[in-house]
Amino acid sequence: MDQRGILIVVSGFAGTGKGTIMKRLLQSYADSYALSVSMTTRAPRPGEQEGVEYFFTDRRAFEEKIADGGLIEYASYCGNYYGTPREYVERQMEAGKDVILEIEVQGALQVKKKFPGTVLMFVMPPSARTLYDRIRGRGTETDEVIGARMRRAVEECEYIPRYDYILVNDDLEACVEQMHHIIQSEKMSTARNAAFIEEIARELRAL
Amino acid sequence: MDQRGILIVVSGFAGTGKGTIMKRLLQSYADSYALSVSMTTRAPRPGEQEGVEYFFTDRRAFEEKIADGGLIEYASYCGNYYGTPREYVERQMEAGKDVILEIEVQGALQVKKKFPGTVLMFVMPPSARTLYDRIRGRGTETDEVIGARMRRAVEECEYIPRYDYILVNDDLEACVEQMHHIIQSEKMSTARNAAFIEEIARELRAL
Repeated sequence: MDQRGILIVVSGFAGTGKGTIMKRLLQSYADSYALSVSMTTRAPRPGEQEGVEYFFTDRRAFEEKIADGGLIEYASYCGNYYGTPREYVERQMEAGKDVILEIEVQGALQVKKKFPGTVLMFVMPPSARTLYDRIRGRGTETDEVIGARMRRAVEECEYIPRYDYILVNDDLEACVEQMHHIIQSEKMSTARNAAFIEEIARELRAL
Repeated sequence: MDQRGILIVVSGFAGTGKGTIMKRLLQSYADSYALSVSMTTRAPRPGEQEGVEYFFTDRRAFEEKIADGGLIEYASYCGNYYGTPREYVERQMEAGKDVILEIEVQGALQVKKKFPGTVLMFVMPPSARTLYDRIRGRGTETDEVIGARMRRAVEECEYIPRYDYILVNDDLEACVEQMHHIIQSEKMSTARNAAFIEEIARELRAL
């Protein structure tokens, strides 16, 4: 069986608990998965650590990275760049780890285009109302911010059919297990096991 | 989420333990899955029961069934017909059960063509040598029969890349769980959840 890791992209509406799911998945299956850390030109917020939340860099270094092909995907928001450094991802995959990129929809499609074997998952709430209530329930966002998030979610819906799987975050533990099972199932696809199938055929002929 | 069951085809070389895997899967998840029973014109063997191993019928009735479109797939071997009656499969799917067809490669491709949403799985041994040893180990087959099975396995290898997944039957329990996880993961594909995605989008716009 192929020992090289695969690439997984996880996206989802803000407020669906992606971060918590990823954290739990990585805790439960530390030997199987590696979470890619994005690079950004945005300034670190209090408490954010280099190499944990992001790799922080400046505009010029980021643009050099783009020019060198050192990023798997990148996008610009609110005047800042965000991207996925290629080197870490490739190193982890070579080591047999499945690498998870938690990125937004445009980046996800860039990755799928470059690496068609990437598995795209989109985390959804059980209902739109649940999402709304979760965001409101935090009590930290203004009505304006909540409105903007809901509009952004509507836009993102257009992209979901281009993902491979949805994950409904109703129960955290169930959702984490489901993500694990989807990844493990994908690793059993015939497309990812062409060498193994060929090897069995060769052995059978030789018997 | 879509409550209708999906169609699953399981094939595999003779001697890979498909029957045992299916039996165990059905025992563990009786509420989720239904196993389709094939119809045949072959005579019942001692101990075989109508509606358990097969539905037994005669040539004329079988050919009428073909003409009426009452079979999802059929094939002829050694002068006998074997086929999958449509009615049972559709009734179980309507009832929300995922229906498993344990059929050979030609039938599998017929089903996939008629129902492109079908999930095709192929059960493989961990190595060709394991398969050979298992078949020999039974001590019930002549060298000639063993040779014929191995040649048949070589032919079947050509079809495996047209399946969706392989299942390696190294450890029975692990293999049963993996089959379950593949089916459950498939049910989370975006293609199978278009209505749910659309519903969330509509609800979000209405908030």
